[in-house]
Amino acid sequence: MPTIDFTHDPATRSWVESAQGHPDFPVQNLPLGMFSSHGGKPCPGIAIGDKILDLRAVAPLLPADAAALLDLVTDDTLNALLGAGEGALRTLRHGVFALLTDTAQAEEVRPHLHAAVDCTMHMPVAVGDYTDFYSGIHHALNIGKQFRPDNPLLPNYKHVPIGYHGRSSSIRVSGEDVIRPVGQQKPEQDGGEPRFGPAARLDYEMEMAIWVGKGNALGHPVPIGEASQHIAGMSILNDWSARDLQAWEYQPLGPFLAKNFHSTVSPWIVTGDALAPFRMAQPDRPAGDPKPLPYLWDDEDQQTGAFAITMEVHLHTTRMRDAGDPPVRLSKGPMSAMYWTAAQLLAHHSVNGCNLRPGDLLGTGTLSDAEDATRGSLMEISEGGKHPLALPNGETRSFLKDGDEIIMTAYGDKAGAVRIGFGACRAIVRPAPAIGK
Amino acid sequence: MPTIDFTHDPATRSWVESAQGHPDFPVQNLPLGMFSSHGGKPCPGIAIGDKILDLRAVAPLLPADAAALLDLVTDDTLNALLGAGEGALRTLRHGVFALLTDTAQAEEVRPHLHAAVDCTMHMPVAVGDYTDFYSGIHHALNIGKQFRPDNPLLPNYKHVPIGYHGRSSSIRVSGEDVIRPVGQQKPEQDGGEPRFGPAARLDYEMEMAIWVGKGNALGHPVPIGEASQHIAGMSILNDWSARDLQAWEYQPLGPFLAKNFHSTVSPWIVTGDALAPFRMAQPDRPAGDPKPLPYLWDDEDQQTGAFAITMEVHLHTTRMRDAGDPPVRLSKGPMSAMYWTAAQLLAHHSVNGCNLRPGDLLGTGTLSDAEDATRGSLMEISEGGKHPLALPNGETRSFLKDGDEIIMTAYGDKAGAVRIGFGACRAIVRPAPAIGK
Repeated sequence: MPTIDFTHDPATRSWVESAQGHPDFPVQNLPLGMFSSHGGKPCPGIAIGDKILDLRAVAPLLPADAAALLDLVTDDTLNALLGAGEGALRTLRHGVFALLTDTAQAEEVRPHLHAAVDCTMHMPVAVGDYTDFYSGIHHALNIGKQFRPDNPLLPNYKHVPIGYHGRSSSIRVSGEDVIRPVGQQKPEQDGGEPRFGPAARLDYEMEMAIWVGKGNALGHPVPIGEASQHIAGMSILNDWSARDLQAWEYQPLGPFLAKNFHSTVSPWIVTGDALAPFRMAQPDRPAGDPKPLPYLWDDEDQQTGAFAITMEVHLHTTRMRDAGDPPVRLSKGPMSAMYWTAAQLLAHHSVNGCNLRPGDLLGTGTLSDAEDATRGSLMEISEGGKHPLALPNGETRSFLKDGDEIIMTAYGDKAGAVRIGFGACRAIVRPAPAIGK
Repeated sequence: MPTIDFTHDPATRSWVESAQGHPDFPVQNLPLGMFSSHGGKPCPGIAIGDKILDLRAVAPLLPADAAALLDLVTDDTLNALLGAGEGALRTLRHGVFALLTDTAQAEEVRPHLHAAVDCTMHMPVAVGDYTDFYSGIHHALNIGKQFRPDNPLLPNYKHVPIGYHGRSSSIRVSGEDVIRPVGQQKPEQDGGEPRFGPAARLDYEMEMAIWVGKGNALGHPVPIGEASQHIAGMSILNDWSARDLQAWEYQPLGPFLAKNFHSTVSPWIVTGDALAPFRMAQPDRPAGDPKPLPYLWDDEDQQTGAFAITMEVHLHTTRMRDAGDPPVRLSKGPMSAMYWTAAQLLAHHSVNGCNLRPGDLLGTGTLSDAEDATRGSLMEISEGGKHPLALPNGETRSFLKDGDEIIMTAYGDKAGAVRIGFGACRAIVRPAPAIGK
């Protein structure tokens, strides 16, 4: 279990001026990513204030054990570095923390800081497998009510961390446009011909991305008590969804084309050590809910396995942009809306012997809490389109229109800890292509 | 569309003696794989008779354009070679065909043939994404009847090539043991506690593996008329399944731990050109079935998009092995049991803009035909365990026991064409591990 060490001291300041009070990237954060500047090759970097530190460039200034870890960054991905485990990530964190807080080294390090606005961010890892869970019980209830008003939750929900496999190839980093998918939709009448065309019910889903660090071998489950050691860090995930495609295709094998056309992740991996101060007890299960099976239960995980992270979704329509209006907030809610902890998701995933590899992505599932203002998708906000959302400028939305930008943010938010953030996860919806024969 | 060229001439003989009349690997086949011998590194190879040709070793003897393609085999995988497209694979095929039929070159080439029995086969590609379809309509009917006797097929089945995402990390090449998965199973009574332990209803699924060659960019669907150009070749796929895990977990998002603990593929990729003589018309849809939407319909694909491939499943139990008895055949059926062509699966997969990458794996889904002897899983043969299969030695099977070996084979089977085969797809079931806390 990561401990809250000196790198979290609120009194510690970096000599990077913009890091003081930065809402996302004070020196207590130090998230990992892959960036490039001036058209160069992707390089490993760490965000600090409004700058990005080029890790390779400062390797000679780092302790030898920290510098050696950068040799793991091959093929323009952080997979192998994440796979080195939490101890390795801590070594690197401590080395960089020392560099960025020691004013004596400022002069040597400063040339290797790039203005973030001038950099391009890349996928931090090559995702081998992407699994999307369904751990937001209020989301499951909100969606379930639309289909089964009297019985919204299926009988397995409180026993099994429900999940399914997503598509790795179409995961993109924040900033890349989302192209509206085309596909079959349910016939107007039962037994009729399916409709075909651009999805009319395009939606976002507010999720957190959990990155696998150290992997496990096929046939060797990760015990729940060790699961958190296999989690390298977290980012924000927008699991774009075409509700009309989903409604027609998903029986009996689950979502497919409704989800695999694009998923967006924020570019920075906030590591387990950075998140340590935001650990909190998993909220008690409501009275009457079953206690999970032993392979999913660990007392320490229950006491520390949830995270005090606040997530927000904002919408910026074309008309808002043209008018110079700011984005409108659609929701704000806590990550603790998860019915299962991250460690439970990982332990469940591997209990059958399934092997997880460094850089694998576990989505939490859409996280909505009990209050209306916390709903993590338009499907929930508009109740399946029945109650379009009225926007301040007079526009309405049941689902997304071309030109809409969705901007998700998230930040650790706990009394006594320095706020750290994930940066933005954003993308603009573009029109569907014409489909040839 | 690949054409039937000189490399299919039944009169052509290789100077490799064992290739004549070889049930799998005559010179008309020339499948691609990754092999190693004597503990060396994996190398690209081609099967010929009971030998494997080391492609890198004979590169200096190949035409320059064919030899250059071998530079694409990096990272011990054939992904980039497959991604070079059908023209590139044809260039390599023609070069190797010339080498293996020209007796004048036999002396120079022979030292680079390895006895297949002395070689280790490896995964031919690194699978980026694995998608499993459900195109065997008789399988869908057989399974559906067990749950919905009056209405076995869901309304979308004849319109949508149903599929879902599988797990890439746990795909293994033929020969690697399968470890029985552990997991939650449905409570004995509704509302009760789920059971937990090794899967009791472990099953195989007989499928064909379709390998993606040339990929497509995100947002750029592959038109049905071009889809076959994106298919590099085929292998055999055993999609191991834990029916008891599946029954409890699969609602509402589809199979997850019931399928992702292991999938086995045969090691040789039989290319599109090798399969050309076995192309056949897609069987007519039964009267009354809807015509697919235009994005799934291409006249040439309907005339040539199915394959005259016969598939067999054999079981070898521990007791049979101990007694020196041969394996028992469990089924034999045609690949043309697919309700959709391979091209239709690929076109559907990309119609929403989803990008396919070289080396991606599309499973056909379990292929059973109408007759009982063609059923491609024990779930179908034993009708969900209700009618255990009686084996000749007195054993019975509803589902697989530890020690059981499943051996799948498949071969192109058409009058006038030289039979070619896929080699075996085999694995032995090993006991479940103990699950710690």
